[in-house]
Parts: sequence; structure tokens; C-alpha cells
Amino acid sequence: MTSTSTTTGTIIDADAAAAVRALLDAQVAAHASRDAAGILAPFARGAARYDLAPPLQQGPGTLVGDLQGVTAWLATFDGPVLLEHRDLVVDAGGDLAFAHALTRMTATPAGAPNSFSFWFRSTWGLRQIDGTWRIVHEHQSTPFHMDGSFRAATDLEP
Amino acid sequence: MTSTSTTTGTIIDADAAAAVRALLDAQVAAHASRDAAGILAPFARGAARYDLAPPLQQGPGTLVGDLQGVTAWLATFDGPVLLEHRDLVVDAGGDLAFAHALTRMTATPAGAPNSFSFWFRSTWGLRQIDGTWRIVHEHQSTPFHMDGSFRAATDLEP
Repeated sequence: MTSTSTTTGTIIDADAAAAVRALLDAQVAAHASRDAAGILAPFARGAARYDLAPPLQQGPGTLVGDLQGVTAWLATFDGPVLLEHRDLVVDAGGDLAFAHALTRMTATPAGAPNSFSFWFRSTWGLRQIDGTWRIVHEHQSTPFHMDGSFRAATDLEP
Repeated sequence: MTSTSTTTGTIIDADAAAAVRALLDAQVAAHASRDAAGILAPFARGAARYDLAPPLQQGPGTLVGDLQGVTAWLATFDGPVLLEHRDLVVDAGGDLAFAHALTRMTATPAGAPNSFSFWFRSTWGLRQIDGTWRIVHEHQSTPFHMDGSFRAATDLEP
């Protein structure tokens, strides 16, 4: 285990943080190659997922709560689903880690002539289970405008 | 330190988890008593906050990014701001913890005759810094409807 002191005086487990970053990189690659099983692979069984779309929590039978859901979600796009995590921060120590980033998604709706891009916020909670890092909690969202419109703020940039 | 094996075989630090729950309880109480300083007290300096309202990340000068912002936010309500965290799960070990819950907020807009309630998702990342647990990351959101309306889904229930 390699430990590094940060400017705030807390200790980061650099090896664990690198493993978490590799896991997230693999999930980005799975989106780009439209690999539904690869998108779900990093999640622990029963992970609590708060996704961009309703319901409040994703589980089996929801939009992206299982393989069938993710497959159906991928079918709403033509070509790769590109994700970019900006300003990724990973806190890791022992068998526990959490991470957050601002994420840009770029994709082309099925049958549409052009791609769209938008930014959202991503947070992950992870545990090392039987020697393998797994996402036990994921939270992805946009804020919403509090001007009475209740519109999701999908037009924000970091 | 008291450790307990969960059904998934991972280890939970029960004392740390209790400290995190106490911190969140204190922040709920600070909302109920409209105590802006108490609402901000649990946050580490420079915490990365992804809030319900824009921008993508709250910092000084934003809606709830500093004492002035939280004070202004509280002024938009008459009386207590009531929060309830349901199904709170805390993962804690060593100096690191993360937690998530479905949160119901109930409040009365300034000058309005009636209160409103809505549910959102809450996630926290925490570190023990100089012996005190602090929130270093917070993420609160509603999902949004993907029916083309881009409306925030403020009408969902757990």
C-alpha cells in the first residue's frame, strides 16, 4: 500500500485510488462500446443506484437497474455513448472508497441526425469485496432550476 | 472500535457509523431551528457540494455555498425546514465513510399559506479530520423525467 499526504493532512491510499480510477475507466469504455454487461459489471449485487432518470432508486425492472434495462437504454442511442469524468476526486483507504466527478455525456439519439452533450454530477461509493473493488452506491444527477419551472438544468457547464 | 460483519461479508465500523449518524442528526436539527451556521458546521473546508439547485457545484457565492447563501436560502421559508432521512445506510471504516438516504423535506415558502413536501436523494462522503468527522462531499438531487419535458421529478415517493 502506498500512502500519500494531501494538503489537507488526510491520508490517501494511492493503490486503492488507482484501482477505483481503473474501474471507472473500464465502465467508460463499456459505454463507448455499448457493452451492457460491462456497464453493470463494476456494481456489487444490490447496489443502491440513484440515477438521472426516475424512479428515486434504480433496481431490477427499472430503466438501468438490470441487464435488460441497460440494453433497452443503449438502444435509444445510435453509436457510442461517450462519457468524460472531469475533476475526478477519489478518497480511498482500507476497503472503502468514494469518488466524485463532473461527467459529460455525448451520444446520438436513435434516428437523430446529431449528437447531444450535457454535464451531470457523479458520485460513487465503493467497497473492496473479496479482493475486488465494487460500486455499492452510485448517484448521478443534474440540479433543477428553482425559478418555479422545475426544469432540469441540463445546460450547465463546469 | 466495534466491528460487525454484515451479510455481504464486509466490515462496518459501528462506532464510526454512529458518529456519522449523529452528525447528520445534528444537521437535521439545525435545519429545523433555522441555524445557518449549524447547517454548514459539519462540512470540511472546501467540501465539494452537488446541490438540488444550480450551479453544478456549490461554492462561496452560490445559493448554499456559504453562510450568506444559506441564510438567504432559509429566508425563502417561514418556520422550520424539516428533513427526514429514510433508509440511511452508512459505510464506515478507519477515517473514511460514505452514506446515502432518501430524504423528505417539508417547509413553507415565505408568505405561503401551506407547506410542501418532496423527496430527494442524499449522498455524503466523510473523513475523520483531526479526530472529527466532516462532510467532504455532498450530493443531493431529484431525477428528471426523460419524456422530453426535462421536468425535475419532485413528485416521487420511496
